[in-house]
Amino acid sequence: MSVLAVGTVAFDDIETPFGKREKALGGSATYITMAARFMCDEVNLVAVVGNDFPDEYVDVMRSRRIDLQGLDVDKDGLTFAWGGKYHYDLNNRDTLYTDLNVLSSFNPTIPNGYRSSKILCLGNLEPGVQARVMKQVENPSMVLCDTMNYWIENSPESLKDLLGKIDCLVVNDSEARELSGIPNLVASARKIRSMGPEVLIIKKGEHGALMFTEESVFSVPAYPLEDIQDPTGAGDAFMGGFAGYLSGCKKINLDALKHALVYGSVVASYTVEKFGPEGLYDLTRSEIEGRIDSFRDLTTIPMADLALIGSSS
Amino acid sequence: MSVLAVGTVAFDDIETPFGKREKALGGSATYITMAARFMCDEVNLVAVVGNDFPDEYVDVMRSRRIDLQGLDVDKDGLTFAWGGKYHYDLNNRDTLYTDLNVLSSFNPTIPNGYRSSKILCLGNLEPGVQARVMKQVENPSMVLCDTMNYWIENSPESLKDLLGKIDCLVVNDSEARELSGIPNLVASARKIRSMGPEVLIIKKGEHGALMFTEESVFSVPAYPLEDIQDPTGAGDAFMGGFAGYLSGCKKINLDALKHALVYGSVVASYTVEKFGPEGLYDLTRSEIEGRIDSFRDLTTIPMADLALIGSSS
Repeated sequence: MSVLAVGTVAFDDIETPFGKREKALGGSATYITMAARFMCDEVNLVAVVGNDFPDEYVDVMRSRRIDLQGLDVDKDGLTFAWGGKYHYDLNNRDTLYTDLNVLSSFNPTIPNGYRSSKILCLGNLEPGVQARVMKQVENPSMVLCDTMNYWIENSPESLKDLLGKIDCLVVNDSEARELSGIPNLVASARKIRSMGPEVLIIKKGEHGALMFTEESVFSVPAYPLEDIQDPTGAGDAFMGGFAGYLSGCKKINLDALKHALVYGSVVASYTVEKFGPEGLYDLTRSEIEGRIDSFRDLTTIPMADLALIGSSS
Repeated sequence: MSVLAVGTVAFDDIETPFGKREKALGGSATYITMAARFMCDEVNLVAVVGNDFPDEYVDVMRSRRIDLQGLDVDKDGLTFAWGGKYHYDLNNRDTLYTDLNVLSSFNPTIPNGYRSSKILCLGNLEPGVQARVMKQVENPSMVLCDTMNYWIENSPESLKDLLGKIDCLVVNDSEARELSGIPNLVASARKIRSMGPEVLIIKKGEHGALMFTEESVFSVPAYPLEDIQDPTGAGDAFMGGFAGYLSGCKKINLDALKHALVYGSVVASYTVEKFGPEGLYDLTRSEIEGRIDSFRDLTTIPMADLALIGSSS
């Protein structure tokens, strides 16, 4: 029951119509691990931060049972920082700045104790870096991988190599369309799966997610929320919830993947209710289970057709 | 088991990346009735056409058991005509022209034989016209109503009156946001339901639909299709499938509404696979039932958690 997340730990400047945060704790590895921990005994993180990274944020993560042996502190540089501003409807955002800082020379070394992790989550990084991480992990049950438009455009060859090695790609709908060159998501999924990943998850923000496997398509909505404060990190939290659930499965079959997708969606829903990762700070497994039950009501088609007068077939 | 649809019968000029049709059979009442007929004995249509409406299209509808007693032929004018062109991703379209023609003076009279219809579908028309239709129908089990941004902006008072009288409003997400003035769909739904309709359905195109009632929210995805030719009429076909299913229910409770929503989504999926209403011409109830089964696979969260090693709560 172990998850290893390799990605970023960052400072995020976030502005939404409902408030703002400066230098909030952020980054893909942060959200993945903070989300995975609810379903998982052992959560391992590999990332780099700079000399400006505060003890306070280290404590936030450590006190949530995230193992930080793999958090490299680069004394010669500053922590990766990102700033974004969301539009009124929260579906679009402008990136205000991206300061790579210590991330630009990040070449992750996986601690020995992490090398047998069951589920490996490759957060969004340069595909060559993601591939080097994979080589250091011994036979994980599943390798999940995120990417972004920048790598699709600028590192197509190393991304192609990587896709042949991973088990599950997790991207959003625009990334899927760009990677495949096909606007239709079903056709796009077929093409992406032919590039390697057995499982493809396409995230659609407020519209939920689709999971494509050899046998089937599975759809989960986003949990309907009346009060969304900040969508930052929802996609990474989704991957973390998905990975955390799978780490507890004896066998990763289609039913397990479907369950995991629901857990991912539910953990993401808690993330967007507060700023940054704050919605994950004091969340409990039993709150998650409660929302899983509501999720069933939201999506379950009743079985009985007994209410019908008759049918005109 | 009767559905009455009052709306438009039109000529549509349609262009999508996959082809085009000129003067295709179109209009809200056309799609609603063509979709409702699979689940319903008696499908009644009220609309107006001009002197240019061809017998061929009358035959298309009549041969599909649509009662055309209520189709008024205005000898002094031309049929309502619309032209639209879809963008590459099919999610956006430009309206090229709208010629109201005989529709501009349409004041529907409901034939006596239609006045006891069980389900009344008010296709998109001026809200005052929709209200006058309602007065002519005796105690239907359910009144469904569509509207559009034009009426939200230009007839807010008569729309407000109408909303206090109907049972179910069926709009798309941008219309819901404009009607409520609220970008969040859950909050938007709460406000719209407070204006009158017990049931609110928000259509989201390729992302499916949400149904809001007093007790619950229910989500259906759009059926995932690899080959979508033309989205025209999908929303009206959705309403027709929904209405047709409800017309066969002894009692319209939450389970019935959920089932109806799935039937609506499935019938809409057949609509978009061909141009105009052609996907509904030779469709059968058993094909619909087959896709309903696939729909369950697409959305059903497996019950058993037996695959779990343990849980870390």
